Amino acid sequence: MKILVINAGSSSLKYQLIDMETETVLAKGQCERIGIEGSKLTHKVPGKEDYIRQTPMPEHKVAVDLVLEALMDEEHGVVKSADEIDAVGHRVLHGGMVYSDSIVVNDDVKRVIRECFDLGPLHNPANLTGIEACEAAMPGKPNVAVFDTAFGMAMPEKAYTYAIPHEYLEKYSIRKYGFHGTSHNFVSKETIRFAGLDSETAKVIVCHLGNGASVSASIGGKCVDTSMGLTPLEGLIMGSRCGDIDPAVAQYICNKEGKDINEVLTLFNKKSGILGMSGGVSTDFRDVKKAADAGNHLAEVALDAFAYRVAKYIGSYAAAMNGVDAIAFTAGVGENDAPMRSEIMSYMGFLGVKLDEEVNKASRGKEALISAPDSTVKVLVIPTNEELMIARDTAALTK
Amino acid sequence: MKILVINAGSSSLKYQLIDMETETVLAKGQCERIGIEGSKLTHKVPGKEDYIRQTPMPEHKVAVDLVLEALMDEEHGVVKSADEIDAVGHRVLHGGMVYSDSIVVNDDVKRVIRECFDLGPLHNPANLTGIEACEAAMPGKPNVAVFDTAFGMAMPEKAYTYAIPHEYLEKYSIRKYGFHGTSHNFVSKETIRFAGLDSETAKVIVCHLGNGASVSASIGGKCVDTSMGLTPLEGLIMGSRCGDIDPAVAQYICNKEGKDINEVLTLFNKKSGILGMSGGVSTDFRDVKKAADAGNHLAEVALDAFAYRVAKYIGSYAAAMNGVDAIAFTAGVGENDAPMRSEIMSYMGFLGVKLDEEVNKASRGKEALISAPDSTVKVLVIPTNEELMIARDTAALTK
Repeated sequence: MKILVINAGSSSLKYQLIDMETETVLAKGQCERIGIEGSKLTHKVPGKEDYIRQTPMPEHKVAVDLVLEALMDEEHGVVKSADEIDAVGHRVLHGGMVYSDSIVVNDDVKRVIRECFDLGPLHNPANLTGIEACEAAMPGKPNVAVFDTAFGMAMPEKAYTYAIPHEYLEKYSIRKYGFHGTSHNFVSKETIRFAGLDSETAKVIVCHLGNGASVSASIGGKCVDTSMGLTPLEGLIMGSRCGDIDPAVAQYICNKEGKDINEVLTLFNKKSGILGMSGGVSTDFRDVKKAADAGNHLAEVALDAFAYRVAKYIGSYAAAMNGVDAIAFTAGVGENDAPMRSEIMSYMGFLGVKLDEEVNKASRGKEALISAPDSTVKVLVIPTNEELMIARDTAALTK
Repeated sequence: MKILVINAGSSSLKYQLIDMETETVLAKGQCERIGIEGSKLTHKVPGKEDYIRQTPMPEHKVAVDLVLEALMDEEHGVVKSADEIDAVGHRVLHGGMVYSDSIVVNDDVKRVIRECFDLGPLHNPANLTGIEACEAAMPGKPNVAVFDTAFGMAMPEKAYTYAIPHEYLEKYSIRKYGFHGTSHNFVSKETIRFAGLDSETAKVIVCHLGNGASVSASIGGKCVDTSMGLTPLEGLIMGSRCGDIDPAVAQYICNKEGKDINEVLTLFNKKSGILGMSGGVSTDFRDVKKAADAGNHLAEVALDAFAYRVAKYIGSYAAAMNGVDAIAFTAGVGENDAPMRSEIMSYMGFLGVKLDEEVNKASRGKEALISAPDSTVKVLVIPTNEELMIARDTAALTK
């Protein structure tokens, strides 16, 4: 069984073709600048040179047609015909309060994705466009929507309800949703498998630390809390996002600078995080680390504050679950930044956490148990794989 | 030594006269509706009937004169002359980034209190008015300012710095300050004393749970983190305040309802918390509990969410300090609501917390150790006494 995984943005489309028997990537690539001058397809097949096509892509349908051409190309292709593709799995940002699982796309599903445009204004319209482009390019082929918010739908009311008037939940569906759900779902289950924990009762905290960053707590793979909220702004300090902050700060800046709320929220989303704290060094943790090592005090505070906030979330989720069996690190920083993992774990002695510093140092981007044998909590590096998770869900729903 | 403690609001003035030898309250009371028609002084002396005077108070100076008259009244007074009052201690909300301790008031201090009007717009102007009224009514008598933000000034940068562009800290002093500082200071030190902990190294979490609510973490009585922020809005769910929330919720409501940020922040401050979550039942925890017991599901969720958030803060502060020796409950809910304390502590088994449920049930409004003898963390009820803390600081600075 072969599954095509699509992640459509407003002017981009990323894809992977995955063979489900071996769970390997047969080909992957991306279309850039869709609807803009200078459109470009980059197609990668393991063991071959990149295949690049620069040709106009006025709309997503054209991009999907080009992806199919590349997949069936004599030299760079990996299938003979589109019939070999069994189904298409789509990353969709927001399923609102409706979808707590992946689902085969029909008109109802498309209606809900459309109804959630307000909740995911940057992503949902593009995601729907991607689905409709695939429907047009491959009529009759099943499409599956895999929602980034689905994992968080298992949260109990005490965790997802904001302390604002109840009518706002009723009227506008304002609540905590959580994002990176596909990643948290994948990594929490992979943690249970890799660490040999009980699949029903294991208490797992996943730290998805990348340019966007979030933490989740789950019991038996079911989310009980997660740090992102109505939007991906809440929670951890990120590359350019502030995460948790007194909402009165937004008011204060609005009034001091005569800005409106949308301007300040753009500031919170794009100019804040370690970029803003460091006085503008970078959104990239490696650059900020270099600056800190060179004596930039603000850069040092930014990284200290980042680690500190992750540690506080781990503590709070240990309380939320009244315990924790495993803590998993994933995504760019989580998988590759051993000193950061060590810094975060330095707060966790009270939980009985003992890191094996040597193993930690040696672990980059592959599954590893990095806690010491006598640690009461297992600490792991578990690379995330959202595309594989989307492919698995798609295969399960369509075979 | 006798200290007069003053808490001046915009149209009110509360006072206590405290004998420092015995740390007992000789008299206390309040002036209401200062500058408004219907001004009223209520003066209470232990063992005597209340003394009430209804007379115009066009300004705070008149109120202070009336307080002095009441304190020296033949029948209801407790001193013969104002000379018996050694000094006056004032609660001042905001000392900005300048004051990390109480201080004897001079022109510099008044200038800083004035410079912090923007940071404490509802309180600082009234606090300054109270000081100036006392200066006018009792020329030459030392006044001491005790700042509600002073305790939080000990926080390290990683805890107080928001992840927004650094220039906002420089330009407008936007950072986490924390409030209820006088209470957290008093209760953390009293916890160390009562529980017999090491005064230099004890890790204490204080849960100040009232209509306003906050949590602090301190080591040896020095604050390392606290839940309120730039303003008293951040942190826990409160009577009418939302506490932590995705700042994008403010934007979402602004845009959906055509509101400006000040209107939404008023909503977050006055219509939210357990009042808003319960669908409008009350800001009072007792009313919301009654509604929950009568089957109001929203009221139940509000109380669940309140307890859950306190528990998560305790967990996060255990991580912040890499351990905790004692958890103290104070203020209205903290001192009196045994089922709520039990609910919060039900999350804390992973820390080795064991509550003595019988002792907990029996403890209301007085100092008590409510954890079991084999609990690895001591849990206590410690009534707060901000007036006594203000009096102690005032006495220490003026004797």
